Amino acid sequence: MEYNKYKQLIAELGKHFYNLGWVSGTGGGISIKDGNNIYIAPSGVQKDRINPEDIFLVNLNGDVIEKPLNDLRISECTPIFLEIFKTNNSGAVIHSHSVNTVLVTDLFEDYFICKNLEMQKGIEGYGIFDELKVPIIENTSKEYELVGSIIKAIKDNAKTKAVLVNGHGIYVWGNSWEQTKKHAECYDYLFKVEIERRKLL
Amino acid sequence: MEYNKYKQLIAELGKHFYNLGWVSGTGGGISIKDGNNIYIAPSGVQKDRINPEDIFLVNLNGDVIEKPLNDLRISECTPIFLEIFKTNNSGAVIHSHSVNTVLVTDLFEDYFICKNLEMQKGIEGYGIFDELKVPIIENTSKEYELVGSIIKAIKDNAKTKAVLVNGHGIYVWGNSWEQTKKHAECYDYLFKVEIERRKLL
Amino acid sequence: MEYNKYKQLIAELGKHFYNLGWVSGTGGGISIKDGNNIYIAPSGVQKDRINPEDIFLVNLNGDVIEKPLNDLRISECTPIFLEIFKTNNSGAVIHSHSVNTVLVTDLFEDYFICKNLEMQKGIEGYGIFDELKVPIIENTSKEYELVGSIIKAIKDNAKTKAVLVNGHGIYVWGNSWEQTKKHAECYDYLFKVEIERRKLL
Amino acid sequence: MEYNKYKQLIAELGKHFYNLGWVSGTGGGISIKDGNNIYIAPSGVQKDRINPEDIFLVNLNGDVIEKPLNDLRISECTPIFLEIFKTNNSGAVIHSHSVNTVLVTDLFEDYFICKNLEMQKGIEGYGIFDELKVPIIENTSKEYELVGSIIKAIKDNAKTKAVLVNGHGIYVWGNSWEQTKKHAECYDYLFKVEIERRKLL
Repeated sequence: MEYNKYKQLIAELGKHFYNLGWVSGTGGGISIKDGNNIYIAPSGVQKDRINPEDIFLVNLNGDVIEKPLNDLRISECTPIFLEIFKTNNSGAVIHSHSVNTVLVTDLFEDYFICKNLEMQKGIEGYGIFDELKVPIIENTSKEYELVGSIIKAIKDNAKTKAVLVNGHGIYVWGNSWEQTKKHAECYDYLFKVEIERRKLL
Repeated sequence: MEYNKYKQLIAELGKHFYNLGWVSGTGGGISIKDGNNIYIAPSGVQKDRINPEDIFLVNLNGDVIEKPLNDLRISECTPIFLEIFKTNNSGAVIHSHSVNTVLVTDLFEDYFICKNLEMQKGIEGYGIFDELKVPIIENTSKEYELVGSIIKAIKDNAKTKAVLVNGHGIYVWGNSWEQTKKHAECYDYLFKVEIERRKLL
Repeated sequence: MEYNKYKQLIAELGKHFYNLGWVSGTGGGISIKDGNNIYIAPSGVQKDRINPEDIFLVNLNGDVIEKPLNDLRISECTPIFLEIFKTNNSGAVIHSHSVNTVLVTDLFEDYFICKNLEMQKGIEGYGIFDELKVPIIENTSKEYELVGSIIKAIKDNAKTKAVLVNGHGIYVWGNSWEQTKKHAECYDYLFKVEIERRKLL
Repeated sequence: MEYNKYKQLIAELGKHFYNLGWVSGTGGGISIKDGNNIYIAPSGVQKDRINPEDIFLVNLNGDVIEKPLNDLRISECTPIFLEIFKTNNSGAVIHSHSVNTVLVTDLFEDYFICKNLEMQKGIEGYGIFDELKVPIIENTSKEYELVGSIIKAIKDNAKTKAVLVNGHGIYVWGNSWEQTKKHAECYDYLFKVEIERRKLL
């Protein structure tokens, strides 16, 4: 298999996000869009031990263009990733299971809300003194069943770059993989600040 | 000594689990079963500095097939690992001393219980909306004295993939080393969520 | 581009501070002064993936002497870094977004204060039994708008080696990059101790 | 300078302990005794960036046998390390500034006490169901002024393998560097369990 920089990158980021605690237990993942090429990790593999040759290449319709030689299945998040790409033309989507995301869905109803934090500037469209909101939707038995409510939340919340899922995690996007990673880091940081503040009340 | 992939793997996973805080102070460990070959780390060695040539190879009866050239003794967990392999035909067992495991044995009696968390899907046989339970047994002076109550807990709890030990840690298993690692990560994550929730009450 | 030890060092420290949680989401940064040469990272780049050839070289007036071949912009912290260098002739400035810095600006008004902690000895001019204070200033919409109040805080507080910014982070300096890093680590440690103490009240 | 395994080891362990949060801000350290040769790190250097050629070699009287080519000074802990070696003939001493050590000196008076934790088995001479105690002494302005009270605490507490210093850290020892590292990890783990338990009350 030829060297492909996005397959390489997804493998690198898999290890990176594992170390951040976002994709332990094979959960979570990342998809990158390069024109009509969409790169997606396989389902149920250890993100800390993923290899570039394990990555799928599909188009926006979900047709598989390249697949691993072994018998891996494509990520269960695939329909969600594809619908987000179609809806907002983003360049990458990160799905994190960070414990912080689960805890803020406990602490907040309907929307995570924060204000007056410098890190808000890291989310495109937000300033420090704005009120930043992230919609929270209910979880479903199967990952693909989330598609409808995620797309609805995106359409109902023009400014948001992420949707939280109750007791589950977060989907985050951006113009490029770099901005998506930046958004994911900033959101996780903002969640952590609000969680720690509650402990200090 | 010839290269052996399981000895290599146990050394790698030792460092990995050390970094997760599961096997500090030479505690905890992992055993992998490949057919009739069972690979086990030595007793009392630093898991962050273990080498492939330090790993023992035994059979299901506990007969030593290969041992390190130095005078290391086999893990004190050996009888427990062997009895778990015989009881449920699993492919690997991880024993973790994660602080999270000790704290949940404080917070819960008889059973750790959680519900409605996405990460439950990572434990074979569980869905998101199921009630997930892990039996908690009492600790004993010597590690090998735990054998009877661990095997009883396995037999009494058909669905469980782990047994917690009060003030001590956890034993986790699965069909393969990959699934066992996945199970161990998912359980530790679920414990962490419930611990953090208590801090936020 | 020729090898330059300060460009190399800033790239290394970027990764290091990222791993400490000080510069996630492209926030935070470091500037090193070598005589009249001032090395500064670009704006909005991932500090965990920064390269030596991305680093700007400017003089004390802010004139750009060397810049990256790509179209990166210089850090938004540049006016702050330059004014700190002019005010106290320090050898490096670290700007951290550590969650600990944000939490102490919640817990304290006007000044972070601690006493009787060994780690105070790591801040030049302080002994264990001294009262250590760090001024806290208000945040502004734009980073460069902080310059005036940071310089005022430095002049009003002769002993301080750092200024905290409400809901934002900290600016830390020292005679050399080594002392600046030491100061930054000691302050973050002292903040963590006081935060954890509040949780244990 | 010739290769020396203990100088190499101290440099490796410096990085390791830094990553554990035990020696940030140039604080803390380790000394290893090999017969009459005692290896000690220099004062005030970054433990995450220490090199084997920076390590001093002294004898039990504190006479310097080998010193770095640069103008480094020997660790301020030297008199403490030497007196501990003379008093209990241990093979290594670790001095950690772990935040956990500071917090337990807040939570406990005179003695840290725990019971019924598996990890106690990692401290030589202790079983799971024993009561484990670590004496806490008062801090002093200068590190070397601690010598008297540390040696008194050692003599007054025959079983202890460590002494805690109020608002400061811990000194830990063992027969060998491996046992000393094991002791340090087990103590830090036990402290963390008791700290987390208080948060969950």
